[in-house]
Amino acid sequence: MGVVDSLPGRRARMAAVGVIRSDADLSVDLRLLRIAEGLDEWLDEHRPDVVAVERVFAQHNVASVMGTAQAAGLAMLAAARRGIPVALHTPSEVKAAVTGSGRAGKEQVTRMITRILELDDPPRPADAADALALAVCHLWRPGGALQGNDSHDLTPAQRAWAEAEKAARQVGRRAGR
Amino acid sequence: MGVVDSLPGRRARMAAVGVIRSDADLSVDLRLLRIAEGLDEWLDEHRPDVVAVERVFAQHNVASVMGTAQAAGLAMLAAARRGIPVALHTPSEVKAAVTGSGRAGKEQVTRMITRILELDDPPRPADAADALALAVCHLWRPGGALQGNDSHDLTPAQRAWAEAEKAARQVGRRAGR
Repeated sequence: MGVVDSLPGRRARMAAVGVIRSDADLSVDLRLLRIAEGLDEWLDEHRPDVVAVERVFAQHNVASVMGTAQAAGLAMLAAARRGIPVALHTPSEVKAAVTGSGRAGKEQVTRMITRILELDDPPRPADAADALALAVCHLWRPGGALQGNDSHDLTPAQRAWAEAEKAARQVGRRAGR
Repeated sequence: MGVVDSLPGRRARMAAVGVIRSDADLSVDLRLLRIAEGLDEWLDEHRPDVVAVERVFAQHNVASVMGTAQAAGLAMLAAARRGIPVALHTPSEVKAAVTGSGRAGKEQVTRMITRILELDDPPRPADAADALALAVCHLWRPGGALQGNDSHDLTPAQRAWAEAEKAARQVGRRAGR
């Protein structure tokens, strides 16, 4: 879970970061209940304007992807129950948004999100850093934070990001076909 | 969705059958919300003692399996929120429970569940028949409806079912490895 405030000038500030954990010894239904309760707590506390969720692909580890898909489903449901819009972004889009490469590794994402959010320490575990990167990715999407203000006046970093995002969309399209 | 009442003597009666539909044109979060609302309506109306959910494997059609896994997750969550126990059964277990073969086709499952529940017409679509078969499978599990009464005195059909179930568990184990 990562909560990010949008600031003027393509900047962002971390509001909160963390992990919702469920006891692996519990049955699946009780683990999902714990996750749903955790999601409710986060949404009640932070009242986000939008919830970004990772778009899950079943490419590699099918077993773990099923659980990820179910957790993502609960996040979408929790947001929808509150009338909060939901956005989906692929892992490639997220990586490209913060590192410039849709194929960046987890450590690179952690390093960049630490820099972007001007954090003293890298968020741990890497999944928590991923959540912050997902939020920043959504903030920086085309027509997002830039909408209606300085979109005509991109900095070199913004231009590099826009190009990386375009490349990531192509990667995402290949991965998702 | 299939709701079944357990009767004495390894019999079962259909209480309700149907399908929760969501508009395919809606975004995923709103489709999940519609399904969650439908699940709540069914649980509020029928107040089951237990909810049986199909254990989803990502074998064949990965794209459709993701949605199935998310819908199954919502069903487990809805039951867990109400404190209703959840049971998972594999498709092979369900098929074996009602047809004697873990590899039975959809039409065979529909024919058998129509006969078992003494219905005038086969439940449609086949997914609705599957839901009833899943409920009957759970009712007939070892230590289930038979527990504490006539388990020492199996009829030939019950014995055939027990053998089929054993075979199905082996099939399930192979499929789920």
